[in-house]
Amino acid sequence: METLFVTDWTRLFSPRMAHVRASEIRELLKLLDQPDIISFAGGIPDPALFPLDRVQAAYAQALADNGQAALQYSVSEGLPALRGWIAARMTAAGAPCGIDNILITAGSQQALDLIGKLFLAPGDTVLVERPTYMGALGAFNAYEPRYAALDLGAAAPSGARLAYVVPDFANPSGRTWPRREREALLERAEDGDLVIVEDGAYRELGFGGAAEPALIALDVARSGGIEAARTLYCGTFSKTLSPALRLGWVCGPRAVIDRLVLLKQGGDLHASTINQMVAAQVVSEGYEAHLEQLRSAYRAKSEAMQAALARHMPLGVSWSRPQGGMFVWVSLPEGFDGAQLLEACLAEERVAFVPGAPFYAVEPDRASLRLSYSLPSAEDIDEGIRRLGRAIAARMGGAVMAKAG
Amino acid sequence: METLFVTDWTRLFSPRMAHVRASEIRELLKLLDQPDIISFAGGIPDPALFPLDRVQAAYAQALADNGQAALQYSVSEGLPALRGWIAARMTAAGAPCGIDNILITAGSQQALDLIGKLFLAPGDTVLVERPTYMGALGAFNAYEPRYAALDLGAAAPSGARLAYVVPDFANPSGRTWPRREREALLERAEDGDLVIVEDGAYRELGFGGAAEPALIALDVARSGGIEAARTLYCGTFSKTLSPALRLGWVCGPRAVIDRLVLLKQGGDLHASTINQMVAAQVVSEGYEAHLEQLRSAYRAKSEAMQAALARHMPLGVSWSRPQGGMFVWVSLPEGFDGAQLLEACLAEERVAFVPGAPFYAVEPDRASLRLSYSLPSAEDIDEGIRRLGRAIAARMGGAVMAKAG
Repeated sequence: METLFVTDWTRLFSPRMAHVRASEIRELLKLLDQPDIISFAGGIPDPALFPLDRVQAAYAQALADNGQAALQYSVSEGLPALRGWIAARMTAAGAPCGIDNILITAGSQQALDLIGKLFLAPGDTVLVERPTYMGALGAFNAYEPRYAALDLGAAAPSGARLAYVVPDFANPSGRTWPRREREALLERAEDGDLVIVEDGAYRELGFGGAAEPALIALDVARSGGIEAARTLYCGTFSKTLSPALRLGWVCGPRAVIDRLVLLKQGGDLHASTINQMVAAQVVSEGYEAHLEQLRSAYRAKSEAMQAALARHMPLGVSWSRPQGGMFVWVSLPEGFDGAQLLEACLAEERVAFVPGAPFYAVEPDRASLRLSYSLPSAEDIDEGIRRLGRAIAARMGGAVMAKAG
Repeated sequence: METLFVTDWTRLFSPRMAHVRASEIRELLKLLDQPDIISFAGGIPDPALFPLDRVQAAYAQALADNGQAALQYSVSEGLPALRGWIAARMTAAGAPCGIDNILITAGSQQALDLIGKLFLAPGDTVLVERPTYMGALGAFNAYEPRYAALDLGAAAPSGARLAYVVPDFANPSGRTWPRREREALLERAEDGDLVIVEDGAYRELGFGGAAEPALIALDVARSGGIEAARTLYCGTFSKTLSPALRLGWVCGPRAVIDRLVLLKQGGDLHASTINQMVAAQVVSEGYEAHLEQLRSAYRAKSEAMQAALARHMPLGVSWSRPQGGMFVWVSLPEGFDGAQLLEACLAEERVAFVPGAPFYAVEPDRASLRLSYSLPSAEDIDEGIRRLGRAIAARMGGAVMAKAG
């Protein structure tokens, strides 16, 4: 194809695009298709755990029983059957609500995008954890916000509008908020007139023990009902059923859901009709048993990773001990840079992870990295952590080694 | 559920929400579920024309052969198999391009949203036809543009950034642009440094005869290649396969597609993996024969509607004669208001359509309405148009009747 002239498109783009950048690590992570690399990079569910038989049956049934409707346009809010199931589940989790409190989105990623679109004007401040979910920053950035570190011990800065948090088995830190921090955030939000965006992507993947109440449940209890709450709960089927269906949801007051429905309509009309039918069918039977399978499988992988870290990491390296979810956060000795370490690990050790810096909206701690244990086998977890430990040890300076030894 | 206090959310919304409004007619059109209403309202494909058997087979095959990948995350750009097919089709249509010139979107609605997000800052001007596709306004409005009428006889106003057009069998007008207008738009765009957004949603649904070249094909011919073109072509499988899959695409220069991919990633990560596999499979065999079936069925319905209009409309009413697509545009006698007529028609005649005014971004012509013939049967088309004609005739003033008689 002959190219006579390439338009300078940059000049035509909206100023918002200064905030929307390709991830620096995206190119590096494209290498992950190479089969000899052990990857702890993506937060990717283990496909062996997909309920494949039941999804197959549900597609066949939806198309056989109701094929024309399954392939037709449907309402922007989402299918009543699926919204009803979600509303019942949110109610059971302590946030009594109805179908009109639920919008079906294209994964929780779209929930974050629509929430950013609804609330953020350029220069508004979003309060985030350090570290926070990189994909949330990717969603919000297009609306040109500032970011500040969420500080439960201080009043929210002026101009703060949203507080985005992952309180359960967080991506990337693996951390779960204790009850008192949840209560403190609700108080801060009320004082600062903040909207709380609760990302519950991993909430269903707890390894056992008493779960803390969701922020939205505590909010409803304080405020007297979902319509008076200021928390928007973002849920997803990506980690529990299948990410390929692209189905998530927002639960919140109708006054917010109604506006998000308008933005959903302008954005992509509605979520896939047939995929919603399939999800509604699959969650209608045996879903608890399926979740128990997932929890047990990821617990085993998490334990394998904890054991491998204890076995192979040099002294001076520390890591989180998640009670659910898919992630371990690793703190490296001072002076390390996760991105440089990744480059070396890919070249020398054929092991991958995500460096920590991109998970910080403010004041990045480069001496950190995120490991996901959801996809690799227990054997690969041990071997991959062995390689990572060796790469770290090889780079430890004399001072650190002395301290460690 | 007890509501103690309802937060005043409006105060927390972004200023953009002043531009995002619920459609005035949405409430009225919710009545369409009532079975005794004959509806010409939605631009909804006839579900009897969905390739249901082949879609069933494709879901079964994707899940049987490749189930884990079908249910897993996939790349933001879209699956190479589907993008490759689209690139080949765009190439065959006169716009030689490769896979990197294609982004898969959630229907063409999302293509419009992402394009608005990429190019529009508040106050930028979008040039549109009068009337234009209401859903495009719904997508762009969130980016707070102004609108101006596209005038091929004058220079583009300053601040104009996009020209949005539906050059083939347009929604809502049914109109097809002649070649010389297409060439004139390309010249205007070059002079005014405009990006052309070509909505090709109905392009595959021509009833026969020579099709005009797509704008992107003319642009590529003028500029020397896709990388030098300033036209972004938005296509969709919603009208040809199934809207429920939520699959469309943008074809354009890589410099634009690359940025749209970033916005897609931040917006909802990617289109449904399994739905993309299914679409790629279904279009791979017998697609031309399927399209011929669609064209023939919609041509028959279009003819039924033209015949019914000729039979039942009072003098003083005129309408378009589309050569493809799903829509007829009706001009009512002066003084009529399509919205008032709809209200009366729903109450008295049990027939529905969309009033014309919402299709105008500037200077609405209220004495107009849009009819879609894609969904109702030929019998219902005749009966519905008879009712509509009766309602119009009953409301015609003496002056109009005199002129008509």
